[in-house]
Amino acid sequence: MPASHHTIDTDAVVVGAGPVGLFQVFQLGLQGLQTHVIDALPALGGQCAQLYGDKAIYDIPALSACSGHELVQKLAQQCAPFAPQWHLGELVNSISRQADGRLEVTTAQGTRLLTRTVFIAAGVGAFMPRPLKLAGLDDFLGQQVFYELHDADMLAGQHVVIHGGGDSAIAQVLECASLPPAQRPTSITLLHRRNTFEAPADMLAQFEELRAQGLIQVAVGQATGIQTHAGKLAALTLLAPDGSTQALVLDILLVKLGLLPRLGPVTEWGLTLERKQLEVDTATFATNSPGIYAVGDIVTYPGKRKLLVCGFHEATLAAFAAIEYLTGQTTPLEYTSSSTRLQQRLGIYATHSQNHSNFPAALP
Amino acid sequence: MPASHHTIDTDAVVVGAGPVGLFQVFQLGLQGLQTHVIDALPALGGQCAQLYGDKAIYDIPALSACSGHELVQKLAQQCAPFAPQWHLGELVNSISRQADGRLEVTTAQGTRLLTRTVFIAAGVGAFMPRPLKLAGLDDFLGQQVFYELHDADMLAGQHVVIHGGGDSAIAQVLECASLPPAQRPTSITLLHRRNTFEAPADMLAQFEELRAQGLIQVAVGQATGIQTHAGKLAALTLLAPDGSTQALVLDILLVKLGLLPRLGPVTEWGLTLERKQLEVDTATFATNSPGIYAVGDIVTYPGKRKLLVCGFHEATLAAFAAIEYLTGQTTPLEYTSSSTRLQQRLGIYATHSQNHSNFPAALP
Repeated sequence: MPASHHTIDTDAVVVGAGPVGLFQVFQLGLQGLQTHVIDALPALGGQCAQLYGDKAIYDIPALSACSGHELVQKLAQQCAPFAPQWHLGELVNSISRQADGRLEVTTAQGTRLLTRTVFIAAGVGAFMPRPLKLAGLDDFLGQQVFYELHDADMLAGQHVVIHGGGDSAIAQVLECASLPPAQRPTSITLLHRRNTFEAPADMLAQFEELRAQGLIQVAVGQATGIQTHAGKLAALTLLAPDGSTQALVLDILLVKLGLLPRLGPVTEWGLTLERKQLEVDTATFATNSPGIYAVGDIVTYPGKRKLLVCGFHEATLAAFAAIEYLTGQTTPLEYTSSSTRLQQRLGIYATHSQNHSNFPAALP
Repeated sequence: MPASHHTIDTDAVVVGAGPVGLFQVFQLGLQGLQTHVIDALPALGGQCAQLYGDKAIYDIPALSACSGHELVQKLAQQCAPFAPQWHLGELVNSISRQADGRLEVTTAQGTRLLTRTVFIAAGVGAFMPRPLKLAGLDDFLGQQVFYELHDADMLAGQHVVIHGGGDSAIAQVLECASLPPAQRPTSITLLHRRNTFEAPADMLAQFEELRAQGLIQVAVGQATGIQTHAGKLAALTLLAPDGSTQALVLDILLVKLGLLPRLGPVTEWGLTLERKQLEVDTATFATNSPGIYAVGDIVTYPGKRKLLVCGFHEATLAAFAAIEYLTGQTTPLEYTSSSTRLQQRLGIYATHSQNHSNFPAALP
C-alpha cells in the first residue's frame, strides 16, 4: 500500500468496464449501492469497444442494430444517475480479505479500495499491450523501450522506431511526425513484418504522404533479437522477407503491436476456475469466495453462452444476491416503472409533485 | 380436431406474445427455426402492454427509458426478419404428444399445430376478460350475456347494459351510441360500482356529452343477482351505494370489467409446477417434458427474478437448447456482428457484395 494514496471505502467494486460491468453498476445502483469501477483500458467498453466498436450488433433485446461504441454509450448513460467512480487505465493487482471480512482491492497504479463486495466482469481478461518478446529487451523497459509514450520530450534528436502495423502504430507515427521542431526525432521508422498497414483511410493517406516526403521510413521484417552497445540498446536484428538479416539502429523503441486480453491476476485470487473461467452459482453468481461475484464472459456454468444478453441477466441476479448478502434480508422485487424508491434512486421521481408524469423532462 | 381446419407443421410454437415471447421468436430465428406464436390477446405485448403500456420502464439494458408499448414495438421489429406466424386472440387448449414424439397444440379457436418444440412464455397467464360471477348468469352466455360483442345487429331495439368503469367499458358505450339508426339500442346504460370512470380524457369528454344529452344512462351500484322472466334474463339486482336494492332491466348485458391473467390450461399439460410456476432446468430452460421449454415470469428456479432482462436470457438459452435437441448436435456460439450465417438469416448480409458495409441500407 503506497503511503501516498489514501484508501477508498465503498459498497462495491466492479472489475471491468465493458457492457456487462456497466450494467452491473446500473443494477447495483438500483439496489442503492455506490460502486467504483476499475478497467485496464483508458476508456469504457472493454472487449465490445475494442473488437466490435464500429461493427453492428444485432442481438441486444429491443435494439435491432447498434455498434459496439453506441451500445457502450447507451449503457454508460443508463448508469450515470448512480455516479460510479471510474479508475480507468488501472490494473487490479490483488484482492485479499481483511480481518474484518472486507475485501482489499489494489491496483498496479496504487489505488487501494476497501469494499464488502467485488464483481468481476473482466470478460476475456484485461486488455494489455501485446508484448514484444526478444531476449534481453525487457532490460531496457522504461529507459529506451516503451509501450505507452508519456513524455514526447525524450524523442528529441533520437532515432525512433515504432513497431506495429495497425491503428495504434500508425497513430503513433503521425504523432511523432507532427511534433514541434524542438521535440522532433532525428529519424522516425515504422517497423512491420510486411509493407501493408491497417488503419482508417485518412490516417493511411497522411502516413503515405509523409513517407513520400521522406519524413518517415518503413522497415519491413521480423525482429529476431537485439544488439547492445556500451550497456544501451543499439539496434534490433531483423529478418527481412528475402531471408537476409539486417540491423535496425535505434535509440527509442515504441512497441505498438495492439492489445491482447490477459486473465492475469484473476487466476491468483483463490477463486475456483474451470478452463480459465470462474465457476459461479447460477442463483447468485457468487464465486466460492463470500462477497465476490463474477458475471459475463469470464464465468462458466452449465448452459453458459458468452453473449451480452446472458451477462445482463447475470449482473442483475448478482446485484440482488449482493444486497441480500450485505443486509442479511431478502429483497422484494420492485419494478422501475412503478417503484417510487427505484425512481428516486434513478433521479426521475419528483418528490413534491402530485402530478408527476411518467416521462419527466429530466431524464438521465 | 375440427375437420374444417387444416393442420400446421412447424419447428416451434411460442405460447405468449409478450416481450419474452417476442425475443424467443428472435432467438429461434437466429437458430434457423420458423415459429408460430399464440396469444389470447388480440395484440402483441401481453402483460407489458396491458400493465405498462404507457408507463416508463428504466431497466432494459441500454434503454434508459421506454414505455411498454415502445418496447413491444422494438422487439416486434427485431423479430420481423424471421416472419413469425401470429395466432392472436387464440387460447391454447391442449398440448399433447403424438406417437411420433411431436407435440400437438390446439387452440379454443380451432387452430391445430404439429411441432417438435414448444416455448411457454405465458407470463402470469392468458389475459382473459374478468368474469362477472352471479348465480345463474352463465346460463345466458352467448344469448344475452357477452364479453365480446361480435354482431352489433343484435343490439337493435334492445335495452343494453354495459358493465364496467374503465377503458374497455367506456369504449363499448361510445361504440353502441354511435351505431347507425337501424342498429341502435332502445337504451344504453353503463353500470359501475361508483360514479367515476377511468379512460383517456377525450373518451371521457365524449361520454359526458352523451350523458348530458340523455343518450346514455349511468347506473351506480353493485350487481348482486339476476332476475329472470319466461326463461330469459330480465334484470340485474343492484345494491345501490345508499344500501337500497333495485332492479336494472335489460335485454343484453355486455361485461367489460377488464382483463385478468389466468394460468388456465398451462396447469393441465403434465408439467412440473411449484406454486403455480413451471420448474425449469437453468442450463436449458427445459421443463420436465422433452421439447417443451418455459421462459419468463411463468418459470421458477433458484434465484429467479421476474424481470424482463432475466426472461431475455432464458429465451436465449432455451433456443440453443432446442436447436441441440432438434439436431442432436452441439451448436457453436456465433456472433451476429461477425457471422455470415446469422446475418443471412437476419436478411442483412449482401451475398454478392465484396464491399458490404456493417450498416447496410436495408435494416430490418
